[in-house]
Amino acid sequence: MNRLFHRVVIVGVGLIGGSLGLILKQQGLAETVIGVGRRVENLQLAVTLGAIDQYEADAKDAVNDADLVVLATPVDTYATHLRDWGGCLPSRAIVSDVGSVKGRLVEEAEQLLPKHVRFVGAHPIAGREKSGVAYATADLFTGARCLVTPTTRTDPEALESICRLWKSAGSDVCSLDPYDHDFVLGAVSHLPHVAAFALMQALTQLQSQLGHSTTLLGYSGGGLRDTTRIAASSPEMWRDICLANRDNLITMIETYMDHLKQFKSCVEQNDGIGLEKIMEQAKQARERLS
Amino acid sequence: MNRLFHRVVIVGVGLIGGSLGLILKQQGLAETVIGVGRRVENLQLAVTLGAIDQYEADAKDAVNDADLVVLATPVDTYATHLRDWGGCLPSRAIVSDVGSVKGRLVEEAEQLLPKHVRFVGAHPIAGREKSGVAYATADLFTGARCLVTPTTRTDPEALESICRLWKSAGSDVCSLDPYDHDFVLGAVSHLPHVAAFALMQALTQLQSQLGHSTTLLGYSGGGLRDTTRIAASSPEMWRDICLANRDNLITMIETYMDHLKQFKSCVEQNDGIGLEKIMEQAKQARERLS
Repeated sequence: MNRLFHRVVIVGVGLIGGSLGLILKQQGLAETVIGVGRRVENLQLAVTLGAIDQYEADAKDAVNDADLVVLATPVDTYATHLRDWGGCLPSRAIVSDVGSVKGRLVEEAEQLLPKHVRFVGAHPIAGREKSGVAYATADLFTGARCLVTPTTRTDPEALESICRLWKSAGSDVCSLDPYDHDFVLGAVSHLPHVAAFALMQALTQLQSQLGHSTTLLGYSGGGLRDTTRIAASSPEMWRDICLANRDNLITMIETYMDHLKQFKSCVEQNDGIGLEKIMEQAKQARERLS
Repeated sequence: MNRLFHRVVIVGVGLIGGSLGLILKQQGLAETVIGVGRRVENLQLAVTLGAIDQYEADAKDAVNDADLVVLATPVDTYATHLRDWGGCLPSRAIVSDVGSVKGRLVEEAEQLLPKHVRFVGAHPIAGREKSGVAYATADLFTGARCLVTPTTRTDPEALESICRLWKSAGSDVCSLDPYDHDFVLGAVSHLPHVAAFALMQALTQLQSQLGHSTTLLGYSGGGLRDTTRIAASSPEMWRDICLANRDNLITMIETYMDHLKQFKSCVEQNDGIGLEKIMEQAKQARERLS
């Protein structure tokens, strides 16, 4: 018997929510999986794909008998959602999420939910260049990291249930303080996305300086392709992540610009020794990554 | 009969020079291939691998009977080399190169070489994270772009020979003005390298702010790995490229920083619409790339 939950509600049945639904269904981890969302066609597709059993347009009608509700909507909608249906949750229900930002959002969720409800923040780190339930797969989280972000207020039993859920999904589950999470992800994920978005914008500007006779991107190789791959990520999702992790991101972009300035200043001063030192340090750090 | 050249001298038998040697030998494009370099063990290895037939420590002893000399050394050594042995070249010999920067270097090569010698700039665009003749392969340039950069002074017959050489190597040969080459490569290759080097440096600084309890890079996913892959490139080579393409690179780093500043300013002002617009433009540009 694999069952962890009786009735699971997934609010937002996209790539991540849909993939979680497939896992819950295929492994028999939940008796019933209910989807909640704005677009009926999307929810119908999710039923057809086997990601959910049934759906409700209004979350309040779905959550009143749930033992787990998973928020899989953009992070800037959390407060609206929790205010809307938080009061309808039964005692000891677990609310969790899959958002890429934690810190303040976890704090807010704990404040907005009634005392008898147990919140556990979670962030499964999965590739997300494609979006929508149509791309959902039961192996999306296999071998991927899932960060859970308990606080002093987190119920240990609820935390354990969420960890078991993500382990069943094949994830490597780690625990991190919610604010540390945002610093870490700001550095290893959000800043690289900003770097890639801005690089594509710079290339578009340089193309306009070059005129139409030569197409810059026609001369690119694997280096540029790799460096800018994540610039094709969802603008809506990344807008929300950047604003939700605003304070970290601002100082991190500044740190990044400082290093670009240092590099530029070495080039300006023809400082080959300085340049080589920067590149050697960068190379060594990069080699620890692979 | 595939033979294009009688006696080819490769000055600098590393990854690129060595791979070119393998191609010349294996396809019978040259009767004799002679390597020139500073390290005898390296040249001996090149003979063992079949990249060259024989070697000379002093280029002057090698070039006096050559019909093609290929410079495959760092770009900042060109002038020293050409001054050293340019005067020993026989009439109508072709001198070519494989450097990542052209513009001023091509101009300089044309000025330094005697009038009876024919210079043709070439830049085979091949992956170069590994360096050294030990990694040389005859298929390194297969399917890759090779840019030739003729000027008004370039001999058409010499240009044709160099184009045939690189087509034989499996490359897709294109012609570009030497200064346009440097602008184009500055944008699609040199700037992305700077972006990746500086990003790794920023992450190292952010790690030091976080302390030892949490290892940033342990939380990274495929996004960071791709974005920074080229930061593992050779510091010596990239120092030379950055300095040789100095003027373009300085204005391009400035353009990049302008876009990072715009991004940061949207985050600071909570301007979700502005952020989404930037990301949407970046995504569309990126999608034209793949």
